[in-house]
Amino acid sequence: MTHKVLLLPGDGIGPEIAAQAARLLKACQESGLDIEVEEGLVGGSAYDVHGEPLPAETLEKAKAASAILLGAVGGPKWDKLEDLSKRPEKGLLGLRKNLGLFGNLRPAMLYPQLASASSLKPELVAGLDIMIVRELTGGIYFGQPRGIEERNGERVGFNTYVYSESEIERIGRVAFEMAQKRGKKLCSVDKANVLEVTILWREVMERLAPEYPDVELSHMYVDNAAMQLVRAPKQFDVVVTGNMFGDILSDAAAMLTGSIGMLPSASLNESGQGMYEPCHGSAPDIAGQNVANPLAMMLSVAMMLRYSLNETAMAERIEAAVGSVLDDGLRTADIASEGMKRVSTAEMGDAVLAAF
Amino acid sequence: MTHKVLLLPGDGIGPEIAAQAARLLKACQESGLDIEVEEGLVGGSAYDVHGEPLPAETLEKAKAASAILLGAVGGPKWDKLEDLSKRPEKGLLGLRKNLGLFGNLRPAMLYPQLASASSLKPELVAGLDIMIVRELTGGIYFGQPRGIEERNGERVGFNTYVYSESEIERIGRVAFEMAQKRGKKLCSVDKANVLEVTILWREVMERLAPEYPDVELSHMYVDNAAMQLVRAPKQFDVVVTGNMFGDILSDAAAMLTGSIGMLPSASLNESGQGMYEPCHGSAPDIAGQNVANPLAMMLSVAMMLRYSLNETAMAERIEAAVGSVLDDGLRTADIASEGMKRVSTAEMGDAVLAAF
Ligand SMILES: CC(C)[C@H](C(=O)O)[C@@H](O)C(=O)O
Ligand SMILES: CC(C)[C@H](C(=O)O)[C@@H](O)C(=O)O
Repeated sequence: MTHKVLLLPGDGIGPEIAAQAARLLKACQESGLDIEVEEGLVGGSAYDVHGEPLPAETLEKAKAASAILLGAVGGPKWDKLEDLSKRPEKGLLGLRKNLGLFGNLRPAMLYPQLASASSLKPELVAGLDIMIVRELTGGIYFGQPRGIEERNGERVGFNTYVYSESEIERIGRVAFEMAQKRGKKLCSVDKANVLEVTILWREVMERLAPEYPDVELSHMYVDNAAMQLVRAPKQFDVVVTGNMFGDILSDAAAMLTGSIGMLPSASLNESGQGMYEPCHGSAPDIAGQNVANPLAMMLSVAMMLRYSLNETAMAERIEAAVGSVLDDGLRTADIASEGMKRVSTAEMGDAVLAAF
Repeated sequence: MTHKVLLLPGDGIGPEIAAQAARLLKACQESGLDIEVEEGLVGGSAYDVHGEPLPAETLEKAKAASAILLGAVGGPKWDKLEDLSKRPEKGLLGLRKNLGLFGNLRPAMLYPQLASASSLKPELVAGLDIMIVRELTGGIYFGQPRGIEERNGERVGFNTYVYSESEIERIGRVAFEMAQKRGKKLCSVDKANVLEVTILWREVMERLAPEYPDVELSHMYVDNAAMQLVRAPKQFDVVVTGNMFGDILSDAAAMLTGSIGMLPSASLNESGQGMYEPCHGSAPDIAGQNVANPLAMMLSVAMMLRYSLNETAMAERIEAAVGSVLDDGLRTADIASEGMKRVSTAEMGDAVLAAF
């Protein structure tokens, strides 16, 4: 069966890095991968054409695809849009919600070749390999009621942080299964000393634990988790948390590696359909200059092959190709260091393709 | 006029470090400071005696005091209390709310003597001096509705993240004024690309800005702020944010120094009444062993003198005394390093008093 892959370049550096992913997809096809690649518009670039960050056409294509590869969305050009529903971010949130992509996998791993890029002391991060499992279609991102309204003569802004047992259970199972495949340690992050919604979160995680007897479950308050990530990040294997805490902690964890330009992510739904994207954003300040690091985007292709298309061998080939270009000393600006060879976005793409 | 100071030792290491603060207060009295010191129960130790983490008697004393010095609350002994309203944390939250202590000042500064304690590379943290201004009596910590209830046949947990314009303006002014006294840079942290409540937050900060023309206001999304703290913390001067984000970011910032045992904090209300406490918690694992670092607690006394009692000179004397014991190489276990002299809680107290 031919898999449909939808490529959504998006905004900022999105199109440049997506171009390298497109070349890689073509190379995979030439190696026998049976996929059909389509493109679509999302984010600010979709708004500019259709007046919507998630046009109906894009959503239709996304629903029909086995997997989606997204570059990045957002930029200062659209930050002043009064109507929040038109902002580029809403294109991304709309895709997550409409496709039910509740399971967000954000690995934070340090490439040994890039150990010196971390702002932490080398011994604290050498070998770092954390998987953050973030709930992506619930919590305060989507909770109702929400808005800004007049109350007692002044305006009041409000959002609702809400999770049901079934939502928590669903992401909990993803995390426990992930822990089973990895180091068998799962840390659930909440704020159960203050927030009722996370008391329920903790309770459901506890209830699931006996079904995964080989996994050691622990709990940590979110403030402490933020500290522990800075203090001793290697204590973590798999971390599971809600949408908002996951947003914050996954970015902090990614930054620990010092090379966020290397990190892909996956967002999966119940049927294994997934959206794959780099952890970094649209980086409007360097857009169009052919200097962005395309590796997170190319590694997103590998993650897609592994999680949505079940093509583990080909995923490994991509990962090995990336490892070998790093071994060869090739570096884009974001990961540049003394004595290494500085390359452009396209040159980095060339090198990965040559090594593939 | 005689100032009343209420000392609330609390739980865990609280009583040990509070004992050193009590000695320091006595030394201040001997140096002419006109204060009257009372003690009270809060947290788990109050629950054990009165069945309440914030007994009426303690609250009365707190209301009558010019300033409160709190050790720490919480511990595993009370973590299993089914009734969240009886947990030690609720004693702390009750004090904050009942006294209207909306302005939480959490400095994260690196003592040059302790530079090597940081998990970050020295050049990234040398001279670090951030002031996090956290809103403390609103936001999702106190928002209604909240709870766990049955909906459509399953349980659902929910909390409400809410701020009114006047609440935002009040903390904004504290932050702008703080920035005026410091490096004149204020970074407001929100998630205005997703949460309406923080769209209002950003709007109010923008509206205040022209009244403080000497302060440069910027905005940052919370996920990016968590990254930037890890990547390049010295870019920050004053940071202002809501209760939940402030909880997370202030802990991460404190940990950047590697010596959270050194950091005091203040929580102020509109009349300048304040509660002062160390940033670290009750550390139940080392409680009763005479090894905890009393310096954050003793520096909390200095902060109290400065912000609530207007005794700047005496505050500076305490800070200088702490600096000199560090210069002398005295270190409790948490900040110990090669070649330094390891001391107990009481010995560290002795040394500060001798240098005072
Ligand atoms: C762009 C934004 C809406 C998004 C989020 O907050 O989820 C981003 O920060 C992310 O983490 O993917
Ligand atoms: C103990 C807890 C309720 C408290 C908070 O979350 O505010 C603590 O973490 C703090 O930051 O003072």
